[in-house]
Amino acid sequence: MRVKITLSYDGSAFVGFQIQKNETKACQSVAGAITRALRRVNINATVVGSGRTDTGVHATHQVLHIDLPAFWTDLEKLQSHLNGFLAPYIFIQSITPVDTSFHARFNAKKRLYRYVLYDGTYQPFLANYALHVKALDVIKLNEYAQVFVGFHNFEYFKRLGGGTTKDERTIFKAGAYRYKNLIIIYFLGDAFLRSQVRMMCGSLLKVCTQELLLDDVIAQRERKMKVSTTLIPACGLYLSKVFY
Amino acid sequence: MRVKITLSYDGSAFVGFQIQKNETKACQSVAGAITRALRRVNINATVVGSGRTDTGVHATHQVLHIDLPAFWTDLEKLQSHLNGFLAPYIFIQSITPVDTSFHARFNAKKRLYRYVLYDGTYQPFLANYALHVKALDVIKLNEYAQVFVGFHNFEYFKRLGGGTTKDERTIFKAGAYRYKNLIIIYFLGDAFLRSQVRMMCGSLLKVCTQELLLDDVIAQRERKMKVSTTLIPACGLYLSKVFY
Repeated sequence: MRVKITLSYDGSAFVGFQIQKNETKACQSVAGAITRALRRVNINATVVGSGRTDTGVHATHQVLHIDLPAFWTDLEKLQSHLNGFLAPYIFIQSITPVDTSFHARFNAKKRLYRYVLYDGTYQPFLANYALHVKALDVIKLNEYAQVFVGFHNFEYFKRLGGGTTKDERTIFKAGAYRYKNLIIIYFLGDAFLRSQVRMMCGSLLKVCTQELLLDDVIAQRERKMKVSTTLIPACGLYLSKVFY
Repeated sequence: MRVKITLSYDGSAFVGFQIQKNETKACQSVAGAITRALRRVNINATVVGSGRTDTGVHATHQVLHIDLPAFWTDLEKLQSHLNGFLAPYIFIQSITPVDTSFHARFNAKKRLYRYVLYDGTYQPFLANYALHVKALDVIKLNEYAQVFVGFHNFEYFKRLGGGTTKDERTIFKAGAYRYKNLIIIYFLGDAFLRSQVRMMCGSLLKVCTQELLLDDVIAQRERKMKVSTTLIPACGLYLSKVFY
C-alpha cells in the first residue's frame, strides 16, 4: 500500500531533509530519521519527499510517500509507533492511503513557503525560528514582493549545486504581512530552485533598507545583472504547505 | 562601579546557569558564557546571579550583578559589545548602575517562575519550550495550585544535592491560566528550593490526571508522606522575574 505522510519538523535539529551517508544521531537528516524509524517497525522503504529542505529549514506540513509492506494495515498504530521514535523534533500529522500512482514530488502542484522575521526586541527564544531585523515597513515589503509573481526564469536567484534543472518557475502569489509580533513573507509557487526563497527574501530586505533599488531586483529577475545573491539565514524559513 | 544586569536566555542551549569546570563551547553554562564575554572586553569579574537555573531551564528576566573596572563607563556600549558576543541564545536587556551594597542573590525579595504547557496538537517547534500534555482542566489546576500558597517547609518538594539550606519558603501567589494556545502555571515566592517548581508542577498534574488526590499533595506539603517526587521536564520552566 502506498501512503501519503504529512509531517512537521524543527529543522534546527537536522542537517536538512535529504538523507546523508554515515549519519550519526547528533548529525542526522529528516529523511534519515524517518528511514530509521521505519526500520524499527520492519519497513524497509525509500522515503520520497515533496522536496528537500536545507539545514535549519523547518516544515509545518511537509509531504512524503512510501510503500508499505502488506502486513502494515493499521495506519493509526503505525503513526503512533513512528511518532514515538521520531519525538521530539519530528511529528507525523497524518498517514493516508493513496493510489500507487501518487508521487510526493512529481505530483505536487504548488508549494507554499513562509519566511518569518520580527522587528521588536531581540528574543533568544526565537534564534532558531525567526530572523531579527530592524524596524520594517511591511506595507512596502508586501509591494516589493510582487516583483517575483508570474512566470520567470529564476536562474539568478538560485544557489549552484544540487543538480541541473530548468530554471523556469511560476510564482502564483507573494506577499508580506504582520502576524502578532512576527512578520511573514510568503511565496506560493509551482516549485522553487535551491535556496531561491532565501535569496529572494534577502534581496527584498535590501530594498527595504535602501541598500538596493527595486529596479535592481527586477534587473536580476530579468537576468541582466546579479545585484544580490545573499542567503538570509535558514532559521526563518518554513515549508508551510504542499498542494496536490 | 557595581551594575545590575537583566538578561534573557534560551536554557536549551546551556548546561544550566552555574559555571562549570572545563566548559567547552558545545557544553557551556550561562554564567560561563557571560564570564568569557566579559573577559573579551577586559573585565575579570565574578558573575553573581539571583539564583541558579538547571540545564534546559529558561529565563525571560534573570538578574546578575558584577563589579566593573573603572575604565568602563559607557554602559550602552558595554551592553552592545556583550550582546554581540552572547548572541544568539543570551540577550542582555539592560545594564544599570547600582549601589555597591546591591547583591543579585541576597537582595532578591521575590522570584516569579512560570511553567508552560500546552494540550493541543503536538508541536515539534515547542519541544524545548513547553511540555505537551493531554487535555487539561485549567480551572481545576488553578484551584489545586493554591495548596502551595503560604509559608511552608518544602523539604519534601526539593531535589537533594546542591548544598544544605533551610527549607522554609513563602509562596505569595500561585495559579494557572490559559494564554493563547498555552497553559501557564506560576509561582511567586521569596525563593525556591532545588527543582521545587518542577516537583510541585509534577504533583499538580498528577492530581489533574487523577493519579493522586489533592489531599496526598497536602500530606506531602505537611511532610507526612512523599507521594510524588517526579520532576517534570526542564523545557517548560522559565525564571520570569526577580523583584528587589
